[in-house]
Amino acid sequence: MKIAIAQINSVVGDIKGNCEKIIRYGFKAKKKNADIVIFPELALSGYPPEDLLLKRHFSDCNKEFLLKIAKACKGIMLIAGFVEKNGGVLYNSCAVIHDGKIVDVYRKIKLPNYGVFDEKRYFSSGDVLPIYILGVFSFGLSICEDIWQGDFFNSVWRKKLDFIFNISASPFHLGKIAQRENIISVLAKKTKSFVLYCNMVGGQDEIVFDGTSSIFSPQGKLLARAKRFQEDLLVFDLAAEHEPIKKEPVEPAREAFEALRLGLSDYVSKNNFKKVVVGLSGGIDSAVVISLAAFALGRENVHALIMPSVYTSKSTFEDAKKICDNLGVSFDIVGIDSVLSSYSKDLKVCLKEIKRTKTEENLQARIRGNILMAFSNTYGHLVLNTGNKSEVSCGYCTLYGDMVGGFGILKDVPKTLVYDIASYINDIVPGTIPFSVIRRPPSAELRPNQKDSDSLPEYDLLDPVLKLYIEDDYSLAEIIKKGYKKNLVKKVISMVDANEYKRRQGPLGIKITSRAFGKDRRMPITNKFMQ
Amino acid sequence: MKIAIAQINSVVGDIKGNCEKIIRYGFKAKKKNADIVIFPELALSGYPPEDLLLKRHFSDCNKEFLLKIAKACKGIMLIAGFVEKNGGVLYNSCAVIHDGKIVDVYRKIKLPNYGVFDEKRYFSSGDVLPIYILGVFSFGLSICEDIWQGDFFNSVWRKKLDFIFNISASPFHLGKIAQRENIISVLAKKTKSFVLYCNMVGGQDEIVFDGTSSIFSPQGKLLARAKRFQEDLLVFDLAAEHEPIKKEPVEPAREAFEALRLGLSDYVSKNNFKKVVVGLSGGIDSAVVISLAAFALGRENVHALIMPSVYTSKSTFEDAKKICDNLGVSFDIVGIDSVLSSYSKDLKVCLKEIKRTKTEENLQARIRGNILMAFSNTYGHLVLNTGNKSEVSCGYCTLYGDMVGGFGILKDVPKTLVYDIASYINDIVPGTIPFSVIRRPPSAELRPNQKDSDSLPEYDLLDPVLKLYIEDDYSLAEIIKKGYKKNLVKKVISMVDANEYKRRQGPLGIKITSRAFGKDRRMPITNKFMQ
Repeated sequence: MKIAIAQINSVVGDIKGNCEKIIRYGFKAKKKNADIVIFPELALSGYPPEDLLLKRHFSDCNKEFLLKIAKACKGIMLIAGFVEKNGGVLYNSCAVIHDGKIVDVYRKIKLPNYGVFDEKRYFSSGDVLPIYILGVFSFGLSICEDIWQGDFFNSVWRKKLDFIFNISASPFHLGKIAQRENIISVLAKKTKSFVLYCNMVGGQDEIVFDGTSSIFSPQGKLLARAKRFQEDLLVFDLAAEHEPIKKEPVEPAREAFEALRLGLSDYVSKNNFKKVVVGLSGGIDSAVVISLAAFALGRENVHALIMPSVYTSKSTFEDAKKICDNLGVSFDIVGIDSVLSSYSKDLKVCLKEIKRTKTEENLQARIRGNILMAFSNTYGHLVLNTGNKSEVSCGYCTLYGDMVGGFGILKDVPKTLVYDIASYINDIVPGTIPFSVIRRPPSAELRPNQKDSDSLPEYDLLDPVLKLYIEDDYSLAEIIKKGYKKNLVKKVISMVDANEYKRRQGPLGIKITSRAFGKDRRMPITNKFMQ
Repeated sequence: MKIAIAQINSVVGDIKGNCEKIIRYGFKAKKKNADIVIFPELALSGYPPEDLLLKRHFSDCNKEFLLKIAKACKGIMLIAGFVEKNGGVLYNSCAVIHDGKIVDVYRKIKLPNYGVFDEKRYFSSGDVLPIYILGVFSFGLSICEDIWQGDFFNSVWRKKLDFIFNISASPFHLGKIAQRENIISVLAKKTKSFVLYCNMVGGQDEIVFDGTSSIFSPQGKLLARAKRFQEDLLVFDLAAEHEPIKKEPVEPAREAFEALRLGLSDYVSKNNFKKVVVGLSGGIDSAVVISLAAFALGRENVHALIMPSVYTSKSTFEDAKKICDNLGVSFDIVGIDSVLSSYSKDLKVCLKEIKRTKTEENLQARIRGNILMAFSNTYGHLVLNTGNKSEVSCGYCTLYGDMVGGFGILKDVPKTLVYDIASYINDIVPGTIPFSVIRRPPSAELRPNQKDSDSLPEYDLLDPVLKLYIEDDYSLAEIIKKGYKKNLVKKVISMVDANEYKRRQGPLGIKITSRAFGKDRRMPITNKFMQ
């Protein structure tokens, strides 16, 4: 008995393309003599289809192409996720295809409706948990959340099964892979079954699926694991001898790097872009973004715009050019001073002197934003945003200025982790990011001698407070109890709350923490709760 | 027996302020000799609190202030919505307060999880439907959605009740008031009970609650109705004689005007703004927005920036000034040509000639956006966005350009309805919007002789197609079947799909149709479904 796990990268809405990929992988698995091949949750529609599910013809289209798969795939049992319409309601379902026919459909029972998930907006719950027999083997099916909610499956599957399949579209965040493997291991042990777990891989807007499909023994040991952040076909022979794999912890900077690289390259390619442009200041954030872009897309697809002003230090400016040279990416230098003085002159009609004011600082950022967008409008490059999570949390950024861009690479990356990613990049390709970039105290360089620490707490202090408030929902009082100063915590919380309006107009970005801004955290803008 | 319906405007998160308001209205009702006073759904927390509900201390705070209400309100029975935590889960509940004590809590049974609603993200369902006795009267409670889902209540309340209360936070859209009153009327008739319906009033980010609380007789006749779009206290004496009220249809332009006015004034005041600034082109959209602002906030709180370019026609420019004069609002004139040529010069480093290109058009819009934001950064005015739904649907607008602003007044208003609102405004204050503004063919004036109809179908054709696609989820084939040309429909659909990325970074705006952009319509950006 050979089972293949097809860890594929589906594209949301590309039902035809996904269908073709499923058939292709089905053939590959058959060629490797697999008896069964399993595909991720909603492999046919892509995940999450969101409000496409409200279109009546979307589920019809799923059915049409599922039949094509059934017709094409003979001589192998195929298990794949699709959107099922039945009796006027939708199910997040899994088709069991055998000998050219859909022989059964399993319907997801536990529908997640928290975090980034909205499944109860669309789907009804299944209520049947069949046991399937193939030759001398028995197996059960489950879809993603089904095995995450408490002891549900452990208690239901009283009869010993030979194996349990779980097909998933389980989004990545730091620590998630270990957490997930722990859950699968416990399930395997409790049910005394092999568990074969097939996860989606790929980036879809703000989320990234890491793949990392796996097979656990009835003793709860990890026997095989598919690639991280890549498509893979894992073929597993139940009859063969298997040594358990040792779990090695992956350092967060590396996991984050890999997630961001995939999230970025998929956003670019799935949205039909080829090239990107980055505003490069010579600071750490844009240095990391442009390096990631060069790794993800190839240096020939990355362009930098260096946009100095009178407040740009010589060393920052030189660093910016050096980074381009190190990466081998092209760049242009467009100064912003003359446009700024042109604004300054014309704005005198309605404003007092703007020199050295917040207005002037924001104008500089907005001129840079306009230049990036003018480049994008002319050549079609996607503008990458470089704002990190610490900044975005506190609103230490200019709306329509440094907040422009189609995709925010560091949107969910706290500043302290940005430094760790920079070090990781320098580990893989030494000398990519100059040491002076890493060492220089962070500054927006929008006025003389400006430092981030003039406006924000030091990042070593800020980031843990932000985590407690944003990711863990701690109250003011609870954070203070953790040992942080009251004034600091109050200031941080009020900055986070007051800048919801900015974030709402910011670019998408890749979720890598347990709670990202975006649909993962749905805060009202009009909100007087301050605790 | 006298019952008071307190149709109040709660503020999300302002639990202390809402508590004080509830107590104040409780006293008012008592003064008018009411035996019972009822308040809207989640009157104490505001609706919808969204992810504030995930904070453990949010529900604790609800409990604390609910006890304060109970303590303060004696001599009247008080029924009000609040967030209840019990056994580690949350309920959308309704407290029955009598003689200083919380005597019972009713938990919402039907939780809406569609459209703008996410209640299953937060709340568990109640499962008890008690019958309450007050003196010789019996009554039942229900919360909003409870009476919207099919025949649920009709079948459950087998025993005849004297009256049924429904407390709601039911968002407005065009036609909703009639739809809602029909549902209440049917419920009253089927249960042969008086139905007393208390709705929230006020604006909260993208939604507006219209109030329009009502009382229906056991024969399904409308006996009393509270104000539309205003706070109100409706006191109803069961013993008195009541003539049914005749339902008069309200014209959409008027309903829309009232909803927008309230949505705007509440967004401004609840977010602690006082003044707004509008970029006034002399076109119909900005003319309607600035008029609405003057009605909603008072002319002294509205400022216009007129920002002509070489492409601005003399008549448009004159109209812009005339509108300010008509409304009595202040304005400044800031030309954009010299900044544009400054950009043009500096961009030569990296771009070819930008004259008469999309890049130049977008730059003009972005310069105007920057000027508005510079004014806002200096004086603290909220920038009002003037984009209408037809434009926003098709992406006929510039990101970070005419899409800037904290709040989009016309975001959910199709262009054809913008004209109707202009006429309505001229009906209430004749001559507000010059006839030349209404008559001139729409143009962005970003190049010589530009017209909207160069890029878009005529609005009379475009708007119905957009409605079918966006609000009604019709497919390409279904829209063509309705009698529209295939090429037209294809073009419209592809514009709507391709511009999801722009809308995601656009300002909030007030929902007035059955499906607005925002959390009402959750579409992936990365999406290859084109049908």
